[in-house]
Amino acid sequence: MPRLRLALNQIDSRVGDLDGNAESILRWTRHCAAQGAHLAAFPEMALTGYPVEDLALRSSFVEASRAALKGLAARLAEEGLGELPVIVGYLDRCATAQPRYGQPAGAPQNAGAVLHKGEVVLAYAKHHLPNYGVFDEFRYFVPGDTMPVLRVHGVDVALAICEDLWQDGGRVPAARSARAGLLLSVNASPYERDKDDTRLELVRKRAQEAGCTTAYLAMTGGQDELVFDGDSIVVGRDGEVLARAPQFSEGCLVLDLELPAAAADAPEGVVDDGLRIDRVVLSPEPLPAAGPELTGGHAERLGDDEEVYSALVVGLRAYVAKNGFRSVLVGLSGGIDSALVAAIACDAVGAENVHGVSMPSKYSSGHSRDDAAELARRTGLHYRTVPIEPMFDAYMGALGLTGLAEENLQSRLRGTLLMAISNQEGHLVLAPGNKSELAVGYSTLYGDSVGAYGPIKDVYKTSVFRLARWRNRAARERGQTPPIPENSITKPPSAELRPGQVDTDSLPDYPVLDAILELYVDRDRGADEIVAAGYDPALVAKTLRMVDAAEYKRRQYPPGTKISPKGFGKDRRLPITNGWRETA
Amino acid sequence: MPRLRLALNQIDSRVGDLDGNAESILRWTRHCAAQGAHLAAFPEMALTGYPVEDLALRSSFVEASRAALKGLAARLAEEGLGELPVIVGYLDRCATAQPRYGQPAGAPQNAGAVLHKGEVVLAYAKHHLPNYGVFDEFRYFVPGDTMPVLRVHGVDVALAICEDLWQDGGRVPAARSARAGLLLSVNASPYERDKDDTRLELVRKRAQEAGCTTAYLAMTGGQDELVFDGDSIVVGRDGEVLARAPQFSEGCLVLDLELPAAAADAPEGVVDDGLRIDRVVLSPEPLPAAGPELTGGHAERLGDDEEVYSALVVGLRAYVAKNGFRSVLVGLSGGIDSALVAAIACDAVGAENVHGVSMPSKYSSGHSRDDAAELARRTGLHYRTVPIEPMFDAYMGALGLTGLAEENLQSRLRGTLLMAISNQEGHLVLAPGNKSELAVGYSTLYGDSVGAYGPIKDVYKTSVFRLARWRNRAARERGQTPPIPENSITKPPSAELRPGQVDTDSLPDYPVLDAILELYVDRDRGADEIVAAGYDPALVAKTLRMVDAAEYKRRQYPPGTKISPKGFGKDRRLPITNGWRETA
Repeated sequence: MPRLRLALNQIDSRVGDLDGNAESILRWTRHCAAQGAHLAAFPEMALTGYPVEDLALRSSFVEASRAALKGLAARLAEEGLGELPVIVGYLDRCATAQPRYGQPAGAPQNAGAVLHKGEVVLAYAKHHLPNYGVFDEFRYFVPGDTMPVLRVHGVDVALAICEDLWQDGGRVPAARSARAGLLLSVNASPYERDKDDTRLELVRKRAQEAGCTTAYLAMTGGQDELVFDGDSIVVGRDGEVLARAPQFSEGCLVLDLELPAAAADAPEGVVDDGLRIDRVVLSPEPLPAAGPELTGGHAERLGDDEEVYSALVVGLRAYVAKNGFRSVLVGLSGGIDSALVAAIACDAVGAENVHGVSMPSKYSSGHSRDDAAELARRTGLHYRTVPIEPMFDAYMGALGLTGLAEENLQSRLRGTLLMAISNQEGHLVLAPGNKSELAVGYSTLYGDSVGAYGPIKDVYKTSVFRLARWRNRAARERGQTPPIPENSITKPPSAELRPGQVDTDSLPDYPVLDAILELYVDRDRGADEIVAAGYDPALVAKTLRMVDAAEYKRRQYPPGTKISPKGFGKDRRLPITNGWRETA
Repeated sequence: MPRLRLALNQIDSRVGDLDGNAESILRWTRHCAAQGAHLAAFPEMALTGYPVEDLALRSSFVEASRAALKGLAARLAEEGLGELPVIVGYLDRCATAQPRYGQPAGAPQNAGAVLHKGEVVLAYAKHHLPNYGVFDEFRYFVPGDTMPVLRVHGVDVALAICEDLWQDGGRVPAARSARAGLLLSVNASPYERDKDDTRLELVRKRAQEAGCTTAYLAMTGGQDELVFDGDSIVVGRDGEVLARAPQFSEGCLVLDLELPAAAADAPEGVVDDGLRIDRVVLSPEPLPAAGPELTGGHAERLGDDEEVYSALVVGLRAYVAKNGFRSVLVGLSGGIDSALVAAIACDAVGAENVHGVSMPSKYSSGHSRDDAAELARRTGLHYRTVPIEPMFDAYMGALGLTGLAEENLQSRLRGTLLMAISNQEGHLVLAPGNKSELAVGYSTLYGDSVGAYGPIKDVYKTSVFRLARWRNRAARERGQTPPIPENSITKPPSAELRPGQVDTDSLPDYPVLDAILELYVDRDRGADEIVAAGYDPALVAKTLRMVDAAEYKRRQYPPGTKISPKGFGKDRRLPITNGWRETA
């Protein structure tokens, strides 16, 4: 059997940064060539970044992407890398689509191209377009209608893009019909908790359906609300896992595959789902196996808590860097949410770039200040204290507020204070809200919700506790100081906006609250189903009423890492003026 | 020819409020029956409201919609209205769809039903699903695959839903193939500037294609970011306009139509686009023409400025009421933006429910306070003054801010002040930002951007001036006091955040700025095309850089009325961490 040395470049891209992304592709291609690769691949839309959203509808951007692709092909050849075929995801337009009402302007396509000897030798577009969850691809793209097959060193490689593997039909059976020796899918598949297991099973199943070895190249890094977790996979035709790349890190997975030689009478024409086989032969003859076999290896898997924590770190790091910031600012209350956010921030951008500020009021307890100072001491972040009493007194003198208005005022004074420091010193403000409190509206709009990024906005409070404990345990195992003060983890959560206040004054206990929220928010279960699952009807009704009423607040919440199966970011879209109530 | 008395109920609905919407349908059906109607129709998704967004994916809501439809049919019969066939838009699910990956959960459908004698006698679903601009219907719905035809008093009425008329193919040619005597489309078509002209031409064209009289029933009112402008239309098969309902108001358009009798050999089976004819015969025999003919009439059209102003008023009124508020709060700077917002608010909810607050700083000019007070005097809104100097001094004492940080602080102190009054007194806060300043980021996050609703966020500054002048002129023509002080219109715009500041320190003149923005934002033109249109390259580059950099701020902007062809609301979706720059 011919041997093919495949190089899967699991990299990060920045949306819109065509020059920077091209530079990165060039750099990694040099590495692939140095490794003796026969075929190098880059993720879905690696050249443009993913998701480009409405940039796809801007023709100057589509043309810039096409020009950048051609420029990249030329540069690869100029640098002596032209002999290595390189697969690059980019944004193209469909030349044959007739304009019609309802079709995305300019007929853009989520495309892949094979670059070789300075030219684009084969181009194709994603066939199955996802339009659910975080995806809107019917809005942006026209589907591809070919089954691209590239012959490299005597092996027929069928090419696909992401959703082509997730949905039934299309390019997986078409790869079998085309009698491909390898199915190679490039992806930008966002992280969700436990999605790695789902993805592995998917690739194993598709390899068996396609009847050939299947390689799944993933993107890594973060873009706005999305995190990409890497974890590229290569699976044999029998479903056996041949190699697996690390989670959450850039790298190049190189491995030698023994693959069937292309048939002399390889099929042509239209196959499954109306896909027309589009063949390009680059090198018909197999190469003799040379040197020791590279196996790619099986990267060690992260545990569940470390995986989630890593997603939070990677998402924040990318957001800060891609927005052109170098440092972050976080209000430190002494509570567990801001402590976990600060710990994540230190891991993401380094403690020397994290600025914490304690903003005590007359209702702040002594331990609040102590715990915040202790966190600063343990992590080494920059720390200062600015009491809000003078500002509070000025407002109360003018307005004489009471009740919730007085409570919210304190939170808003802190938000304004953080933004003032941010404007003066140039830090990106982090919002400390967790998913439980945001879901039920237990937060102050323009107050604790202030911030460009909410690192734990998709983490339920019970997970906040678990992650804080995991992070401290991991530090101890590494012989480091645990970043989060024990007292921040063990004391009862409180907003400290009135004397003696604790969260359980207003909210159910967090384990019960989170269990109900998970059913209602993440799984779209109705009130009856949640009660049938064993929860107290009055508590269910109270919780669901809070969630329904909180929808408006959430609309103004900053973007943040998306890690839950269904969060409050892009993938939950509810009308604001919503008269529907799950409970009477 | 048989005569059919058609009643088109151009009404408002509230998303999710199944009971309230059913009550409204019942009330209007009583009216139709009293008018002797033979067929009554209600808009697209009138029973659920439109758009339901992710509520479509919640099975408890889909089932509640189905139950509400059956309940409505029963109530109509109980009230003696069962003989009148009533067409109602609602949310259903497709009973025959097999679950598959990528299909909306539960296979929901944007559906219509004919209620008669206490039963649902015919149900159908939208065939063409829009997925562009403000629409996401591939995310939510499974398309319908029938061509429903209802025989009423000997006339075959082909039924369609909104997009079925906007896109080529599908139910328009199918209505011709089915030899229908009337094509009736129910709609929830959001307002855009000049869309009424487009819509009229569309209906005239489709009537000719369908070869029969065509009725286009529109929704009216407001829902979140959308405004529905009414303007229902009936057009003859030759394209002649037979009747047209008023813009922006609820009402029932009743008219008698002379229509061809249904053929004895009317076609069956599958016709255009794979649509299967689904016929229900309610009453085969034509009714003799009785009494004088009702013509429906041609409502007077609004002028361009009045039309836009009406959209702003209707959108705000709906948002306030549907969110359960009774009053609004607006910061009054003496400038034209807040003056126009206050005038719109007074027209929307009545001056007795509008609260204005002047929040002068040491940089505020004398005329700012005078103009704000004069606005209050002219309109009769509630007015108070709260200086921000004590709060400003408290922050400056603690932080010693300079430059932009000091400017933004003043704006945020005002935002916090408005929210404090809102929390204390229960008003909904209005944000005064216009589209020009939001586009270029000339506003303060958590400052002047504070508010649940931005009434003029989709109105360019040049239009703000035009609308203010129109509103004053309209008042004079009606013998009323013009609401907006002349000085607010004529003085140079200024944020008054530092001594002597005017907008043109930072921005191009508004007529030029708005012209460039319109090309870049609304029409997606690139830098080269804008320069080619005759604008100064340096000015174009500066403006586009400001827009690109402002994207992040806009993400946190409150929802507001959507009136432009392409605004900053739902229908502009750009990545935040965007490396793409139109200009170098």
